[in-house]
Amino acid sequence: MITVGIIGATGYTGMELIRILLKHPKAELAYATSRKWAGQAISDVMPHLYSARDLVLAGFDAKEAASAAELFFVCLPHGESMNISADLYGRGKKVIDLSADFRLRDPAVFGEWYGEHTQPELLSEAVYGLPELYREEIGDATLIANPGCYPVSVILALIPLLEEGLVSLDSIVADSKSGVSGAGREPKPNLHFPEVYSDFSAYSSAGTHRHISEMEQELGGICQGDVKLTFTPHLLPVSRGILTSIYASPSDEMDEGSLVELYRERYSAEPFVIVRDLSEPLPGLKDVCGTNQCILATRYDERTGKVIVISVLDNLVKGAAGLAIQNMNLMLGFGEDVGLTDLPLYP
Amino acid sequence: MITVGIIGATGYTGMELIRILLKHPKAELAYATSRKWAGQAISDVMPHLYSARDLVLAGFDAKEAASAAELFFVCLPHGESMNISADLYGRGKKVIDLSADFRLRDPAVFGEWYGEHTQPELLSEAVYGLPELYREEIGDATLIANPGCYPVSVILALIPLLEEGLVSLDSIVADSKSGVSGAGREPKPNLHFPEVYSDFSAYSSAGTHRHISEMEQELGGICQGDVKLTFTPHLLPVSRGILTSIYASPSDEMDEGSLVELYRERYSAEPFVIVRDLSEPLPGLKDVCGTNQCILATRYDERTGKVIVISVLDNLVKGAAGLAIQNMNLMLGFGEDVGLTDLPLYP
Amino acid sequence: MITVGIIGATGYTGMELIRILLKHPKAELAYATSRKWAGQAISDVMPHLYSARDLVLAGFDAKEAASAAELFFVCLPHGESMNISADLYGRGKKVIDLSADFRLRDPAVFGEWYGEHTQPELLSEAVYGLPELYREEIGDATLIANPGCYPVSVILALIPLLEEGLVSLDSIVADSKSGVSGAGREPKPNLHFPEVYSDFSAYSSAGTHRHISEMEQELGGICQGDVKLTFTPHLLPVSRGILTSIYASPSDEMDEGSLVELYRERYSAEPFVIVRDLSEPLPGLKDVCGTNQCILATRYDERTGKVIVISVLDNLVKGAAGLAIQNMNLMLGFGEDVGLTDLPLYP
Amino acid sequence: MITVGIIGATGYTGMELIRILLKHPKAELAYATSRKWAGQAISDVMPHLYSARDLVLAGFDAKEAASAAELFFVCLPHGESMNISADLYGRGKKVIDLSADFRLRDPAVFGEWYGEHTQPELLSEAVYGLPELYREEIGDATLIANPGCYPVSVILALIPLLEEGLVSLDSIVADSKSGVSGAGREPKPNLHFPEVYSDFSAYSSAGTHRHISEMEQELGGICQGDVKLTFTPHLLPVSRGILTSIYASPSDEMDEGSLVELYRERYSAEPFVIVRDLSEPLPGLKDVCGTNQCILATRYDERTGKVIVISVLDNLVKGAAGLAIQNMNLMLGFGEDVGLTDLPLYP
Repeated sequence: MITVGIIGATGYTGMELIRILLKHPKAELAYATSRKWAGQAISDVMPHLYSARDLVLAGFDAKEAASAAELFFVCLPHGESMNISADLYGRGKKVIDLSADFRLRDPAVFGEWYGEHTQPELLSEAVYGLPELYREEIGDATLIANPGCYPVSVILALIPLLEEGLVSLDSIVADSKSGVSGAGREPKPNLHFPEVYSDFSAYSSAGTHRHISEMEQELGGICQGDVKLTFTPHLLPVSRGILTSIYASPSDEMDEGSLVELYRERYSAEPFVIVRDLSEPLPGLKDVCGTNQCILATRYDERTGKVIVISVLDNLVKGAAGLAIQNMNLMLGFGEDVGLTDLPLYP
Repeated sequence: MITVGIIGATGYTGMELIRILLKHPKAELAYATSRKWAGQAISDVMPHLYSARDLVLAGFDAKEAASAAELFFVCLPHGESMNISADLYGRGKKVIDLSADFRLRDPAVFGEWYGEHTQPELLSEAVYGLPELYREEIGDATLIANPGCYPVSVILALIPLLEEGLVSLDSIVADSKSGVSGAGREPKPNLHFPEVYSDFSAYSSAGTHRHISEMEQELGGICQGDVKLTFTPHLLPVSRGILTSIYASPSDEMDEGSLVELYRERYSAEPFVIVRDLSEPLPGLKDVCGTNQCILATRYDERTGKVIVISVLDNLVKGAAGLAIQNMNLMLGFGEDVGLTDLPLYP
Repeated sequence: MITVGIIGATGYTGMELIRILLKHPKAELAYATSRKWAGQAISDVMPHLYSARDLVLAGFDAKEAASAAELFFVCLPHGESMNISADLYGRGKKVIDLSADFRLRDPAVFGEWYGEHTQPELLSEAVYGLPELYREEIGDATLIANPGCYPVSVILALIPLLEEGLVSLDSIVADSKSGVSGAGREPKPNLHFPEVYSDFSAYSSAGTHRHISEMEQELGGICQGDVKLTFTPHLLPVSRGILTSIYASPSDEMDEGSLVELYRERYSAEPFVIVRDLSEPLPGLKDVCGTNQCILATRYDERTGKVIVISVLDNLVKGAAGLAIQNMNLMLGFGEDVGLTDLPLYP
Repeated sequence: MITVGIIGATGYTGMELIRILLKHPKAELAYATSRKWAGQAISDVMPHLYSARDLVLAGFDAKEAASAAELFFVCLPHGESMNISADLYGRGKKVIDLSADFRLRDPAVFGEWYGEHTQPELLSEAVYGLPELYREEIGDATLIANPGCYPVSVILALIPLLEEGLVSLDSIVADSKSGVSGAGREPKPNLHFPEVYSDFSAYSSAGTHRHISEMEQELGGICQGDVKLTFTPHLLPVSRGILTSIYASPSDEMDEGSLVELYRERYSAEPFVIVRDLSEPLPGLKDVCGTNQCILATRYDERTGKVIVISVLDNLVKGAAGLAIQNMNLMLGFGEDVGLTDLPLYP
């Protein structure tokens, strides 16, 4: 049994981590912080986590934290996260940072999209926590940069195409649709219930969403090239889930059957990526709701010569907390899927 | 006051026509049919249309219909619609056909996508009912092919780009998301409430949706070229509305400001197309819910060299019944916007 | 054409008033205020109201207001509303106050539920704006207290029973379910989209909701008795609509047919109350969405000896803005239903 | 490891049983039937159950079933269920029948509400599967009548009041609101997505819902009296969950604190009933979504002298499949909560 802590436990990512950890057979949640609710039991602040009656939220204190747990999930806003993660890392703790703070390797790129980095020397220490790309490195890592939800959705959908060099690097369009929990738990006018219910809209279009930097870094890394991604996020009137529709132009002739086969082979050993066959229905959000799975389907439009990839995942699980647990399992040598085998809640 | 009839009045398009006609100051709903509910008052079958207490649904009878009304909206499934529309047309009536039956000019293309056409000689008589392209022809027409909901959403978004020859014709991707009413009123397993609620998925991907034939015909007509459209429809867990996100590669250098200006100019005189400025928020479904408006926004992604156009409309109004009324107004010389000036229900 | 003003135009009630007024043939919106958005055009702040491009929101100024319009809708929070309404009233203007400030006749009761009243002398001037009870008085009034949304839903459901003295006054239970727009436009943690979506809960139970004071005053007035109402409001995961289920014990024998007949007769001349017959389906929120109708259905449970009444209305229309327009029409001698004849948006 | 079978595995209750059984450490799903999909793998028919790839759906065959498994969940429509359950029971198998067929003890009452019973002699054998009332009997039982979803919601809310004789038996009103999955997986016009979305309505009012017979039998049993229940079900526009609001008149003086204390004591040892304290928020559907918990809150309205009880549960879990697993655990001497400890998916 390893002891773990959550820094920033009352946001959606934090509460999802608690939900999963409370049933994890090898990890014990021993420490959790909240600036706002320090001193109260988790189950008082978030009554749906009723079995966490005995765990009291603390105000963050590095020394106290370090003596309470061996591995930490840091779920703070970017900019704040880096300092606390660095502190815990400096005390010899394993750290999984769920903010954007350690995802970009180049401090200059970080500066462009997010502002100045106060721990630039750690950027090269951090491993990008996507097991489908970096399983081995994650096993050896002490500091994990847990990927963003959109990036997981987009990168997993593109790995086979880019590894094999099958598409033109400047042709890729990712049209993503996310449930509202991806925007966090802070109430905002545009996320007020009556505003979103029955609505649907795009936002941060035309190259302005920060996750682009992370996606282009990783996609470029896969193919050793310069990927320029056209990315449009949309806000879906649901709580959970991301569906991304990807369009790309093949560099060469393409055959739909081989395309699907390529995807199935690439992911055949992956515990958390499912590739639907041509005979199976296209996946929907409810196929992954509450699970750590990413489901992919791919098609080739012969009429127009475009490859299409559909990717679905639960933004709070495979797009955040579940992936973080998967990373923890790898770091600690547990079975990769321990605590993560739930099927989706359907319907 | 002109008398009008609706053939197939109890589907979603039919009931939306009734809703609009009951407040139209120059048209009187004098005849409405239903195979299933013939003999019952409209308000008994559809109690929300409570002010239609006196109108009894009839079984279709061409002679009776012809003596009851001067203009007909035919809202039957494709394949059935063509014969009844032809019959009414043959009796000298004005006909607005809301099925797909008269939208394609070439019977061979119709055959490929829908099956054999029994009234091929009428295909050249029919005018495609999109006033933003064919206002004058509609004014003189006797038979209107009312466009499909996805095509209205896609075509209006592309007219300025194609008229000016600004984008490469084989580069266009249309990623559309539609509310469930677009699939009709017939209950189906995949449209059962618990299945769709909180879900989101793509369907008919990779060039298999029938509306592609109609879109390519009209888009090709605009630019006198051969447009090959990559089109992916998605099912949104809401009742009403279509949002389409379009991606295209410019043939030449592009400037975002001029792009928006082009759109604003092209549509400045249009009563039912609004172009949002760069300073305005991207439009959402609720901006058009219940209205006959199509709202467009366009952006240029300098990083990737892609033009992006966002288009929203209410699939049952500007995508079906409202557009049909707009066409009726033009055919009869009424003010184009009579009966169609409602603002959206918000929130 | 009469000129009207809205004080507090950017909340949900204010924007709904604008929506209705913009199509009202006899009233012209000449003045609208917003503390937060003063100086901006209505359509800039609320782009869905696109046809209100020329009206600029003002900061409230009593003199300016008085010179701009003849009748005012005051849509401010209770406590603030009373002073501005009193000011405009003092300047000889007609005032329809949509807050709770003038709904209670007894300042002591107001004090108990809301706090001190600064304009107690006006409480006896104000007419409770429910035409189904006070049509004549509204016609002569200068100051209208526009009812709360729950009270309209509950009172209309009970008028026939109480007028005829058919139920025991301490037996009445009203179980109400409201869409989230009833809670206003201000973002709050418990009204954040992901919190409400797919959820349903009760709140302010056991006699703690302020609308109880207003309901008991009016219900008691109808029967000249002391009504004690058990009222539980619930939050529905939709934007619009209230459905109230009422349970009461008859004082005497009851017959279901006569009960329905009583309701139909009582409301036969009312333009905005529909009583469904026993053969018709029970009404739902979508039967009234966007309309000024209240639909009632009543049943008698022979097994248990309880009368049941179901009442549905759109909280922003018949429960707020639409009712306010109905009151304005009466005050000004317009046709009572002018501007209010829309059918519901369905589905 | 015990082998179990599901008869009727492709409805919502069947698929929920599969979801829970696949992670149950002591039960193995060895047999599952479907009339419609016999011969296909579970994961082909219901792709969200992807880990059930190897289990092929069978057409029901009693002999084959009996040799494949030791305990059966029968999830067929009432009327069909009784014969198959009787057959399996006759073969010495343990049977949990999830239909209404064995819930009523009196064949005459069954006849009134459901029609003729073909296995009346088994009615006295069957144990009503509500552990909070019949834990011991369930442990010894071979045939379990798994309760209806509304009855679980209502009975658990009333046990403490009725056991202590605190309320008048003819005063009880249960106003229930259920998600659409409670109506089953069969598509119907009134359950078509666009019809239900954003809607809310009552149905089967005034003593016509069949669950009343079951509720009155059990409530009467608790208090050894004749309970007449006023019950109104409503259809919530969500997939899962039931919230019931109960109103009752105390027979005597009542104190809110003692009332809550009574509930907390009565359920203190129950693994699947949570009683919220006065200081805690009223529970909502999302507090129980996907879990086997029923959460209760109770209040006393001093003004009107009514007791109010709010009860929430997930209709597919504590209201059906989860409760069935709880019953199985008791029948087989497993820990009562094995496989049922998940926390809710939130938000």
